[in-house]
Amino acid sequence: MKILVVHGPNLNMLGRREPGIYGTATLDDINGALSQLALELGCEVAFFQSNSEGGLIDEIQGAVGHCDGILINPAAYTHTSVAIRDAIAATALPAVEVHLSNIHRREAFRQTSLIAPVAVGQIAGFGTESYLLGLRALFSLIEKEIVTKA
Amino acid sequence: MKILVVHGPNLNMLGRREPGIYGTATLDDINGALSQLALELGCEVAFFQSNSEGGLIDEIQGAVGHCDGILINPAAYTHTSVAIRDAIAATALPAVEVHLSNIHRREAFRQTSLIAPVAVGQIAGFGTESYLLGLRALFSLIEKEIVTKA
Amino acid sequence: MKILVVHGPNLNMLGRREPGIYGTATLDDINGALSQLALELGCEVAFFQSNSEGGLIDEIQGAVGHCDGILINPAAYTHTSVAIRDAIAATALPAVEVHLSNIHRREAFRQTSLIAPVAVGQIAGFGTESYLLGLRALFSLIEKEIVTKA
Amino acid sequence: MKILVVHGPNLNMLGRREPGIYGTATLDDINGALSQLALELGCEVAFFQSNSEGGLIDEIQGAVGHCDGILINPAAYTHTSVAIRDAIAATALPAVEVHLSNIHRREAFRQTSLIAPVAVGQIAGFGTESYLLGLRALFSLIEKEIVTKA
Amino acid sequence: MKILVVHGPNLNMLGRREPGIYGTATLDDINGALSQLALELGCEVAFFQSNSEGGLIDEIQGAVGHCDGILINPAAYTHTSVAIRDAIAATALPAVEVHLSNIHRREAFRQTSLIAPVAVGQIAGFGTESYLLGLRALFSLIEKEIVTKA
Amino acid sequence: MKILVVHGPNLNMLGRREPGIYGTATLDDINGALSQLALELGCEVAFFQSNSEGGLIDEIQGAVGHCDGILINPAAYTHTSVAIRDAIAATALPAVEVHLSNIHRREAFRQTSLIAPVAVGQIAGFGTESYLLGLRALFSLIEKEIVTKA
Amino acid sequence: MKILVVHGPNLNMLGRREPGIYGTATLDDINGALSQLALELGCEVAFFQSNSEGGLIDEIQGAVGHCDGILINPAAYTHTSVAIRDAIAATALPAVEVHLSNIHRREAFRQTSLIAPVAVGQIAGFGTESYLLGLRALFSLIEKEIVTKA
Amino acid sequence: MKILVVHGPNLNMLGRREPGIYGTATLDDINGALSQLALELGCEVAFFQSNSEGGLIDEIQGAVGHCDGILINPAAYTHTSVAIRDAIAATALPAVEVHLSNIHRREAFRQTSLIAPVAVGQIAGFGTESYLLGLRALFSLIEKEIVTKA
Amino acid sequence: MKILVVHGPNLNMLGRREPGIYGTATLDDINGALSQLALELGCEVAFFQSNSEGGLIDEIQGAVGHCDGILINPAAYTHTSVAIRDAIAATALPAVEVHLSNIHRREAFRQTSLIAPVAVGQIAGFGTESYLLGLRALFSLIEKEIVTKA
Amino acid sequence: MKILVVHGPNLNMLGRREPGIYGTATLDDINGALSQLALELGCEVAFFQSNSEGGLIDEIQGAVGHCDGILINPAAYTHTSVAIRDAIAATALPAVEVHLSNIHRREAFRQTSLIAPVAVGQIAGFGTESYLLGLRALFSLIEKEIVTKA
Amino acid sequence: MKILVVHGPNLNMLGRREPGIYGTATLDDINGALSQLALELGCEVAFFQSNSEGGLIDEIQGAVGHCDGILINPAAYTHTSVAIRDAIAATALPAVEVHLSNIHRREAFRQTSLIAPVAVGQIAGFGTESYLLGLRALFSLIEKEIVTKA
Amino acid sequence: MKILVVHGPNLNMLGRREPGIYGTATLDDINGALSQLALELGCEVAFFQSNSEGGLIDEIQGAVGHCDGILINPAAYTHTSVAIRDAIAATALPAVEVHLSNIHRREAFRQTSLIAPVAVGQIAGFGTESYLLGLRALFSLIEKEIVTKA
Repeated sequence: MKILVVHGPNLNMLGRREPGIYGTATLDDINGALSQLALELGCEVAFFQSNSEGGLIDEIQGAVGHCDGILINPAAYTHTSVAIRDAIAATALPAVEVHLSNIHRREAFRQTSLIAPVAVGQIAGFGTESYLLGLRALFSLIEKEIVTKA
Repeated sequence: MKILVVHGPNLNMLGRREPGIYGTATLDDINGALSQLALELGCEVAFFQSNSEGGLIDEIQGAVGHCDGILINPAAYTHTSVAIRDAIAATALPAVEVHLSNIHRREAFRQTSLIAPVAVGQIAGFGTESYLLGLRALFSLIEKEIVTKA
Repeated sequence: MKILVVHGPNLNMLGRREPGIYGTATLDDINGALSQLALELGCEVAFFQSNSEGGLIDEIQGAVGHCDGILINPAAYTHTSVAIRDAIAATALPAVEVHLSNIHRREAFRQTSLIAPVAVGQIAGFGTESYLLGLRALFSLIEKEIVTKA
Repeated sequence: MKILVVHGPNLNMLGRREPGIYGTATLDDINGALSQLALELGCEVAFFQSNSEGGLIDEIQGAVGHCDGILINPAAYTHTSVAIRDAIAATALPAVEVHLSNIHRREAFRQTSLIAPVAVGQIAGFGTESYLLGLRALFSLIEKEIVTKA
Repeated sequence: MKILVVHGPNLNMLGRREPGIYGTATLDDINGALSQLALELGCEVAFFQSNSEGGLIDEIQGAVGHCDGILINPAAYTHTSVAIRDAIAATALPAVEVHLSNIHRREAFRQTSLIAPVAVGQIAGFGTESYLLGLRALFSLIEKEIVTKA
Repeated sequence: MKILVVHGPNLNMLGRREPGIYGTATLDDINGALSQLALELGCEVAFFQSNSEGGLIDEIQGAVGHCDGILINPAAYTHTSVAIRDAIAATALPAVEVHLSNIHRREAFRQTSLIAPVAVGQIAGFGTESYLLGLRALFSLIEKEIVTKA
Repeated sequence: MKILVVHGPNLNMLGRREPGIYGTATLDDINGALSQLALELGCEVAFFQSNSEGGLIDEIQGAVGHCDGILINPAAYTHTSVAIRDAIAATALPAVEVHLSNIHRREAFRQTSLIAPVAVGQIAGFGTESYLLGLRALFSLIEKEIVTKA
Repeated sequence: MKILVVHGPNLNMLGRREPGIYGTATLDDINGALSQLALELGCEVAFFQSNSEGGLIDEIQGAVGHCDGILINPAAYTHTSVAIRDAIAATALPAVEVHLSNIHRREAFRQTSLIAPVAVGQIAGFGTESYLLGLRALFSLIEKEIVTKA
Repeated sequence: MKILVVHGPNLNMLGRREPGIYGTATLDDINGALSQLALELGCEVAFFQSNSEGGLIDEIQGAVGHCDGILINPAAYTHTSVAIRDAIAATALPAVEVHLSNIHRREAFRQTSLIAPVAVGQIAGFGTESYLLGLRALFSLIEKEIVTKA
Repeated sequence: MKILVVHGPNLNMLGRREPGIYGTATLDDINGALSQLALELGCEVAFFQSNSEGGLIDEIQGAVGHCDGILINPAAYTHTSVAIRDAIAATALPAVEVHLSNIHRREAFRQTSLIAPVAVGQIAGFGTESYLLGLRALFSLIEKEIVTKA
Repeated sequence: MKILVVHGPNLNMLGRREPGIYGTATLDDINGALSQLALELGCEVAFFQSNSEGGLIDEIQGAVGHCDGILINPAAYTHTSVAIRDAIAATALPAVEVHLSNIHRREAFRQTSLIAPVAVGQIAGFGTESYLLGLRALFSLIEKEIVTKA
Repeated sequence: MKILVVHGPNLNMLGRREPGIYGTATLDDINGALSQLALELGCEVAFFQSNSEGGLIDEIQGAVGHCDGILINPAAYTHTSVAIRDAIAATALPAVEVHLSNIHRREAFRQTSLIAPVAVGQIAGFGTESYLLGLRALFSLIEKEIVTKA
């Protein structure tokens, strides 16, 4: 089982970017923690970060045939990108949406997700832990699908 | 460490209620899975379900001094109860909000949570797994607080 | 055939409550008229009134396995209760929604029914007669279902 | 006692028109059922159907002095015709509004009735039965008025 | 100089229709008063009333080449008819919009005129007098145009 | 009979101010035309212009006991002044609202009048003629009142 | 194959009506061009224009059993007629919606089509060409259906 | 004279609950201060607190025939309970609405009161003092009514 | 201790102005009652009324250094004046907002206060009594501040 | 004559992407059909697809001086890209907007086009045929321009 | 060249008024800095401050024939005064709008300017510097106009 | 001191792009003028233009540690890019937002800036001059910061 982890815009700045909101962990810290959990669960993870909407879409499309699911923190594009939403739908892969902060208690424009309607579920507000919970959720989902299909 | 698990209205009907949306697990199944995970993590869990907004508030208030955190699926009251929101705020305990279905892809009125602004985070869309992920998240949060305080 | 008649909040005040809007008939008068019509039609009716949203939900859930349909005047909860809506959906019983006054010509907030999307139909504006017409409609519906299933 | 039954646009297509929503009864079936019930109740019924807003208004105006009440299914004009609303108000006759489908669970634009503020009450969702219940309601209303005036 | 006077739906009921709002003058009274004023001013007036949106449009279109201006009380169609608006624009004739009641202090939906953007001006709230003022205004406008062109 | 003519802000700039919208007549031209018509009708007119909301309110209040009606072009304050609205209501005098341009075909914020709910009627779009028509309308209204009271 | 071409209100004024927006072609010009294209494609076309909503509905309903598709320019009724929408749905025929002007760059109220949800597709902004493209589109659609059914 | 003092949800937590917003006085402190003021004014006070909407309605209904007025802090139900509003209206007793914090400067959803339309007046923002001012206001109102009736 | 009492526009008309809404007490009656209560409480009161927004702002600004608090009935400017709001904030004095009528049950535009966000609290609906309660509230607030500072 | 055909994000997934909505034709199929039609009409076509908003803008800008018109399916960017709109306006070339699905009957956010105000016209709902009709429309437009200029 | 500098309500309180938002410079400091810059640029400046909307309008109107441009900080009236907007438009002079704070990141009601549509440009957020930049911008504009006209 | 000047999408088309709105200066002209002013002020400027949202974010992030401030004209992304807003916030550098046209008098969607809440201030409407004024403002801000820190 292989899972694509997609990080949206400005997440490469983690640790340096508004630590009051996003915490002090860097993206490498998060990827490291995910790799470790993947090892425990018994799956592979591949990482991708981009500030470009188009770059994110290219990568998501590329997951078809190579990955079994997508773990995505769309960051700012959560609220503005119909194109990423359509890309996820186009892959027909199970996707889990995660957020470091609890977007539902922030500015009004951050409380709406254009991605949610094409995601299995959403996890928000737990910092790095949001990603780890998301990986567990996605792993468990794909496992059930494999069992069901088998 | 003790965690209060609060189930909102109609969750006592789980398994029988619209299984296409909410799955076939019963509330006892969910509570059983939570108990088992609590055992693994090393914490206590207490369960409460009520169809009454007032009953839920009474129980949430009662957690002060007895519990270290609240795991809550406010169900229909997510979208209509300012009073439960105020009750959670009044306890000053960390709270995690969970939902069986991904409320962000359902009817518009189900996409807004009055509870979110007083919760640490939100997990939605993974069925029984939403609760288990929520327990993990809450456990990890409280543990860190204990460490920080010590 | 058995039908549960559910009266929402403040309907126990009927006759005394704003008679210019709600008329002078008491709840007993309405229940009496319903009993008589039930006798004529050949069905049983059980009555329940509560001012408590949770109490109403408990009763509605309890109808599963004991009643064949629900005749409900959700009164003020018509406009605010997602929980009662979910309870009715959870029973999977046919439900008919009735109102004493024509809610569609009153204040804007009374013109929207959260209950309607889970009810077969709605009857509003005829005072006590709204209930009697509702019982006829529900009786006729259940009868057809029985015939269809038979 | 004489009652004018007014059928709005496209109701002449009943039986053929989207039977999943509107059922398989034709307009003649409905009129036949109404005639029979009128006979039972002891009143006269006159029928009128038109696809033209103006034609419907002409007929409604013509009821003054000839009919004691109006039973109307304004169909699509329910949501767009201020002119039919004004026509009903101009007659000063009691009017009952009926709908085959439960308009309150359909598209948002079908959930608002411009006619309701000039109607005694509204019945929606019971197919042909909506008309029969409407006739009963109107008959009973006019009878009470006659008694009151006498 | 010839002016077409167009009366919208339900204005044929004037005198009988909600006299508290619309007064006791009949449409004949209004037309009579207009004829007399036209005589004084030195112009011709032609009258048309219809409850049909299409009928009104046919007549308005027919004014091209025969009339120098249109005095119109669109009544209920004021708020719903894009088609009458387009018809007036299509004639390229000066039009004055009049209303018996002051629509700007009535229900919200009566405070918006779809006709206003194609009319020179609007007069509302003076009963029969609204029409007479409107005729004066239109007469004076056309006279100025004639002078300007000459 | 005495009528107070109230001109709102910037009307002292008439003739110089955006003549494409407001025409080339000055405020003196308008007052002159009103004086002449008043003479014909047989009534007195007093004029007042101010750019100050408070000054306008003082003058309107002062009309009580000295004038029989108010002819007012509230100009920009039409859309923003609840205080002028309350002042007119406080006088309990009949008021007619006039506008040089047809406010109902201009920017959205100019299409709403806070004054209309306390005015008998509104005349808009005829330039100087709006005032003259307004004076006729008000004169005729007061005359009828005098007759009715006598 | 036979196609009904329906022209909505004011289209009989084409050529004379606001040529800056709608061009100088008359309705006869358009019908002529459609006839010629129909000949080329190998299908029949029937034309109908009315200013009456009811008349348009009657004609649309009449297409059942006689035509294979509807090419409609609903003009002003695009934005206000639920009844025409319901009529098209009632026929269950494929319908293509065309507009002379690009309604999506005009006034806000012209950017919404009540007809679109029951049409296969929409073509707007190409003047007479909109109709010709619409006929091609509809012809091609029906041909495919015939092939599929055969 | 007897006055029912009704405290809504979470007010039993006062002193412990978000003291930055609601102050450090407990509900007993408030009730004590009210009792003392009642003694000074010469009236009786009865106290009731509940977290349950239904419980509050039961108590409010029970005031009929036993109390002369209602002093109510509906707390969170201020913004969500049509049922409490209807209960107060049903009693036909004078009611005064009080709030500890100035709800009009808090979150948008706290700035609207569903209770206000059935209350004589509202006092907000003065902490415990809001209740005392409310009692004075209600006492003075009832006294005047008694005098008027006598 | 000195308190500035500010009366907004049209309050000089009290007693004469819409007594059904505002009562029969004049502004002198209110000021007299306030003077008497001030005497009892042991503070000074200064009164100011103006119909001019600018005049009110000048006076409010002038309170700095001379008064300890502001009791204000902004009347119509409650709903439209950002400038008075800014003036109160600029003084940094405690302000209490009062209204004769219960603005929260009147027209929608009267239910929003631009002043509330800079006022300690709001009292509405008790006629003259609103002012007296407001003076008590403000007196008590300032006294506590003095005690706290001492 | 040369026409630039621009395909927006995710259109490279055609055939694989949600075939229920977008059909089974691939982008190569569409480009092939366009090339063939271009040959028939006598013009050149160049194709460009990108998932990147910036990439699309670069290409559109590059058309100046090389192409005579733009045929664009902006896909998801239709609803979110002001920048593509500005790019098209900056080229001052005629543009035709096409969509595979009828966006006007899909989710609300897909019913608004930011591109439409800078496009000559829009064609939606005909699958591959939308492009072919669009090419015809654009070809015909440019040809007329060339004739007009010549 | 002469420029009128207009300061809106409460700007006379600068330095004392909410220094956290508006800084510690007084109005005299700002005027002094403007005078110095005017000297450098080679133009005259005249200053005016008023808390009165009417007073500001009088002054703005008075600029016609005496000044070549207006530099205005409309302060609170930015968001509420259609009358000041109309006054600026009436002068037909170039106007530059300045704000001390960045109004676009403050409360929602401060993010809309009624003045902007009649101003050349807007500068906000730089404290005293906003005025100086505004003067430079206006000077440079007028200079270009003079050159163009010469 | 070094300042990064960021030009958003389509600004590379300046001079050629809608000169009626954006003027005839090219981007090189603007950069030249900025370089000259930087020389005068005594600071360095670096320029970057991209049509790609991601490219702009990469560059903005790269400014950390290399530049002291950002001068940005986000062009179309002003209204749609939460990601650029987050990038600017992530740098924690002072940013000044400039616009060639006065966006507050253009289409409604251009009147809202997603960037403003993370910018010190905004300058709009002065063409090339907007940039020059922005550079002055930013220079002066950074200078003050340096002084304060020193």
